[in-house]
Amino acid sequence: MSKSKQNLKRMFEAKSVAVIGASGDPLRIGGRPVAMIRDMGYEGALYPINPNRDEVQGLKAYPSIADVPGEVDLVICAVPGALVEDMLGQCAAKGVAGVIVFAGGFAEVGGDGVEAQKRLTAIARGADMRMIGPNCMGFANFANSMPASFHPAFARPMPKGNIGLVSQSGAFGGLSSLMAMDRGVGFRHVLTTGNEGDVGVADCLDYLVDDPGTEVILLYIEGVRDGPAFLDALAKARRAKKPVVCVKLGRTEAGAKAAASHTSALAGADAIYDAVFSQFGVHRVNSIEEFFDTGAAISVGGMPKGDSIALVTVSGGVGVLMADDAAARGMTVTELPQSTQKKFKEIVPYAGVNNPLDVTGQIINQPEIFEQAMRLVLDEGDYDAVVGFQGASLNAPENVESGLTMWKSLKTDYPDRTFAVASLISAEGQKRFEAAGIPTFREATHATRAMAAGAYFTRCFTTPFDWKPAAGSDAPLGNGTFTEQSALATLSAAGVPVMPTRSAASAGEAAAAAEELGFPVVMKILSPDIVHKSDVGGVKLNLASKADVEQTFGEMMTAVRAKAPDAKLDGVLLAPMISGGVETIIGVHSDPVFGPAIMFGLGGVFVEVLKDVSFRLAPFDTAEARRMIDEIRGRAILDGVRGAPAADVDALADALASLSQFAAAHRDRLLSVDVNPFVVLPKGQGAMALDAVIELKDD
Amino acid sequence: MSKSKQNLKRMFEAKSVAVIGASGDPLRIGGRPVAMIRDMGYEGALYPINPNRDEVQGLKAYPSIADVPGEVDLVICAVPGALVEDMLGQCAAKGVAGVIVFAGGFAEVGGDGVEAQKRLTAIARGADMRMIGPNCMGFANFANSMPASFHPAFARPMPKGNIGLVSQSGAFGGLSSLMAMDRGVGFRHVLTTGNEGDVGVADCLDYLVDDPGTEVILLYIEGVRDGPAFLDALAKARRAKKPVVCVKLGRTEAGAKAAASHTSALAGADAIYDAVFSQFGVHRVNSIEEFFDTGAAISVGGMPKGDSIALVTVSGGVGVLMADDAAARGMTVTELPQSTQKKFKEIVPYAGVNNPLDVTGQIINQPEIFEQAMRLVLDEGDYDAVVGFQGASLNAPENVESGLTMWKSLKTDYPDRTFAVASLISAEGQKRFEAAGIPTFREATHATRAMAAGAYFTRCFTTPFDWKPAAGSDAPLGNGTFTEQSALATLSAAGVPVMPTRSAASAGEAAAAAEELGFPVVMKILSPDIVHKSDVGGVKLNLASKADVEQTFGEMMTAVRAKAPDAKLDGVLLAPMISGGVETIIGVHSDPVFGPAIMFGLGGVFVEVLKDVSFRLAPFDTAEARRMIDEIRGRAILDGVRGAPAADVDALADALASLSQFAAAHRDRLLSVDVNPFVVLPKGQGAMALDAVIELKDD
Repeated sequence: MSKSKQNLKRMFEAKSVAVIGASGDPLRIGGRPVAMIRDMGYEGALYPINPNRDEVQGLKAYPSIADVPGEVDLVICAVPGALVEDMLGQCAAKGVAGVIVFAGGFAEVGGDGVEAQKRLTAIARGADMRMIGPNCMGFANFANSMPASFHPAFARPMPKGNIGLVSQSGAFGGLSSLMAMDRGVGFRHVLTTGNEGDVGVADCLDYLVDDPGTEVILLYIEGVRDGPAFLDALAKARRAKKPVVCVKLGRTEAGAKAAASHTSALAGADAIYDAVFSQFGVHRVNSIEEFFDTGAAISVGGMPKGDSIALVTVSGGVGVLMADDAAARGMTVTELPQSTQKKFKEIVPYAGVNNPLDVTGQIINQPEIFEQAMRLVLDEGDYDAVVGFQGASLNAPENVESGLTMWKSLKTDYPDRTFAVASLISAEGQKRFEAAGIPTFREATHATRAMAAGAYFTRCFTTPFDWKPAAGSDAPLGNGTFTEQSALATLSAAGVPVMPTRSAASAGEAAAAAEELGFPVVMKILSPDIVHKSDVGGVKLNLASKADVEQTFGEMMTAVRAKAPDAKLDGVLLAPMISGGVETIIGVHSDPVFGPAIMFGLGGVFVEVLKDVSFRLAPFDTAEARRMIDEIRGRAILDGVRGAPAADVDALADALASLSQFAAAHRDRLLSVDVNPFVVLPKGQGAMALDAVIELKDD
Repeated sequence: MSKSKQNLKRMFEAKSVAVIGASGDPLRIGGRPVAMIRDMGYEGALYPINPNRDEVQGLKAYPSIADVPGEVDLVICAVPGALVEDMLGQCAAKGVAGVIVFAGGFAEVGGDGVEAQKRLTAIARGADMRMIGPNCMGFANFANSMPASFHPAFARPMPKGNIGLVSQSGAFGGLSSLMAMDRGVGFRHVLTTGNEGDVGVADCLDYLVDDPGTEVILLYIEGVRDGPAFLDALAKARRAKKPVVCVKLGRTEAGAKAAASHTSALAGADAIYDAVFSQFGVHRVNSIEEFFDTGAAISVGGMPKGDSIALVTVSGGVGVLMADDAAARGMTVTELPQSTQKKFKEIVPYAGVNNPLDVTGQIINQPEIFEQAMRLVLDEGDYDAVVGFQGASLNAPENVESGLTMWKSLKTDYPDRTFAVASLISAEGQKRFEAAGIPTFREATHATRAMAAGAYFTRCFTTPFDWKPAAGSDAPLGNGTFTEQSALATLSAAGVPVMPTRSAASAGEAAAAAEELGFPVVMKILSPDIVHKSDVGGVKLNLASKADVEQTFGEMMTAVRAKAPDAKLDGVLLAPMISGGVETIIGVHSDPVFGPAIMFGLGGVFVEVLKDVSFRLAPFDTAEARRMIDEIRGRAILDGVRGAPAADVDALADALASLSQFAAAHRDRLLSVDVNPFVVLPKGQGAMALDAVIELKDD
């Protein structure tokens, strides 16, 4: 482990903390961390630093960080912005592992602030010392009883938990801590990152993946600065099977604009984030409630081992609502076994016994039928997830008691199933249920939503995954500009199939080349000076014979010379006339944050009108390429519609994977690739690029 | 008002109630309504009916309904199923306005139950007496303090409110009442309908629209039995500008299957419900929480008068989340005026002042900046809706007090704006805010979601609306089968433009007809016996001259005679060869519940692969047709893409409206119409049906 990573860990798990600018007033920004850390029962050493006082809030104070005896893992720097640089230097000299800088007025205000922040970063990095902030609220390590922050929310007792949260918004970090406590769900870490002068989201994520006590990770981000590090951390999370739930702000134009004005510009297209989330198995959500619900449900009750779900309900109407919700989220809601249906009908003749199993209002007279229904479903149906809707009953304390007994015994008797309870349960009841490992929801569809999220992670975690970023290569890549021909040749060399072509400088050569290719052929003028070939009569289709080719050659030369007298003409390019197949578009987009992303879409209106495209970060294998292909709405076109044969999806997937390898290898120089059309021929006949444009970055 | 409608109103607002099967035990099904009605403070007359007792729960009891002195508006019939028929007859004889039948074992169990229910319906309808149920939980009129039910939830005190709920699920009706109380939002009516032997959703909806005290209507339905009555009631709601929020179950296949097993089959495709909701301005939601949130927000705070929204926040991160949510739901999140930005920057230099306006953590030191921000935004920005996110602050009772003062004064000072507050507010705080007319949400995105729902209703209510169901006509409509030609002729007569055609019995006639139409033309064999014309050589395209036509005529006759020697040949049909334009598909689908619905989609893969279609119930005008056209995802195709000219959308809208009039007029006989392709030519050139199939219902 690098020194820098060691220090990150030392900081987050600090055994000794100093507060620079420690105040005797526990309500001031320099007094709060001292009071909060001490009062929460932190067991490490706590050193207030204050040159004017011997004692701060009952603790011995030191004039400077240099005066502190022994090692200091974490310094909370609570002094005004102007003093930070000096203090940071002192911390570096002392060998502090990490520093939190609360003060604002740095990169977020632009101008001189940007430069000032750069100086802080340089001091920290020069010493392998980590810095959180500036302009941040710090973090809280609840496992260590250490709220390294001035946010009052972190001062409140937190139940023991296994959730780690990373938030770029400090205010949200504080708020989330209150929300977790409200719900009785325990956070282990809340890490806020502020301006990210040094420590960013990727560092925090990486730390949480390595932390054995963190089992569920929540990310609240507007974007990331270090794309490759973020991807590495996500890949590690996926390999470790730690679910990552993410709110990524700025999914709409209005939101992106608001985010841009809120943070120092974080570039990167939202669609590319979506691609990253698909590829790495991150679950994206769009509300705080869903964010917490999902994290809490998995933290408390785990993830269903598959997609099948059974619903047991006291209200048929709510049962159907849950079936709709589960099915809309990709769960399978298959009918109960006939024997189960029959057995329950013997208990309640008029019950609904399909799936949902509706025990009906009979529950009022026979409360025991709910458990009977659950056990029948569990014994005879092979469902991964089972949700029980119990109406308002768990609002009453006496029902909480009996309900808890039932659910606990179900959990014990069926340890491989995942349960959730929906009921108008009281807050107190919810806490008791969740402490017993049974997630509860006041809204019925939130129970199915959470189960679907868990099943999503299971699906991801059981799918082979082999992200390995390409290092980039120094292999030469053209001389800065590509012609259509050299672009196709380059892609062909990279393993992307392209249409065979022949060049010819005379009518005779052209006729011979056409014969080699097979008729009919297409003829195009070859000239470095002509971009729009058809505008000057430089494209002829469907030439059917040698004679046709010879005559057209002469006509084309004459026509082009007349319209573009100054152009250098190198003869013509011949290619077979392709008919049939499905036109697609494949390409490379170079994202400023994440590097090369591969784009796939169907040709024509699918891309232009419907924006029906999918992205993946390069490089990837053919299995990932297939998932990418399967994501577009028009996917069925490739299976053949209106009498067309099925297309060669294997060849398409191979081409996408090859293009991704090419893009990754040349990530430093490649700006974009646009292969349009890329024709996918009928199954077994392959696929080929008919035209391609490659653009390089300016050197 | 019909007697039947008068009796519905008399029943729901009963001044006298009798309970047949009244029990002295207030926990039994026959005892509960007596106890509940009396204890809630009902001011009307309450008559327990029990032949075995003189007194029930302290009230004078009567041996039979006939013995009750004076009029009885409502009878609650709490006797077992086998006795219901007799009791119902006695109620009819007494002239009771309406009866609730709790007992089950009727249509929901099939077989004899269906017949038994029909007898109940016949008794009720024979006397213009209304019946709710059987197999129902009755209703609660909270305005009258009359819980006509045995569901214990209705026995609890309900705050005064203006929301009316109709639920086909009895259990959900009870649950919803608890949820409303929990939230401190008042329901005025909760009407559950059970088996709907007589009173259905449409009746209840109609009643609530007419009820002056009901201002917001919530529907929780699996489907409706009486489509036309439901539409009439929705139309009345829309004209009365009463918002209708609806959970319609069965939107997925799994849900629809569950619903089918749960209720006596309610047919009608879910897509047609969506069309109804679009057309009549109903807001469909898919969770109970959203259902209540939306209803409560409008009930408490009204609807924004337009789509523009401003966001004021104490957390930049949450502000962006709300901006995303509002924009994704169709609100406009435009930047604050420059002067406002400048003025707030003078108060908090580092604030985010775009929109959202982020007051930043500075709020901790200067709590007054939140109101300053709100007033600046309200004074200078012309926003219809303003949402304030106040973090966790309103969780503290002292902040509730000061917050309430601020919000009340804003509401007074800016009466034409609609407000919502998002904060981790306590339940108690939420009740106080909402009592003061300020909707509050613990989840930030639910505030924007509710504002967007309100704006949706405003948009609907300010859009002209003229639903007038066609009565159907006795005009003749073919003789049971249509040929392509007679189908096109029929549509043409109905105002749907069709391709001009000429029939010809000889080569000479054909050539003359072709000349009239203009070259090139298409020739098709005319024969009542041949369905697949191209299979027998009976279609030739692109005939460019008289000679061409004459020769092809002969060839076609020979070819067809060879392949279909027994077919009667009536000559050929000639039509101009249409090129250019956008291929669309328009049609009529006859829904079993709602009658004829018009379908629109783009041709080819749009309908077949993407299922990109929209529906509207017939009849409608061109304005509605345009909204229907605008709903498809591929809408931009009609504006012209890839160099194509814009299509004649006016002509398309006219054709859809004409088709809808035709479908409505012939609703009783028409099964389906499929016009494919319907070609929309470039703007100004019209549109035309090239082929059509009309199918009639079996007589």
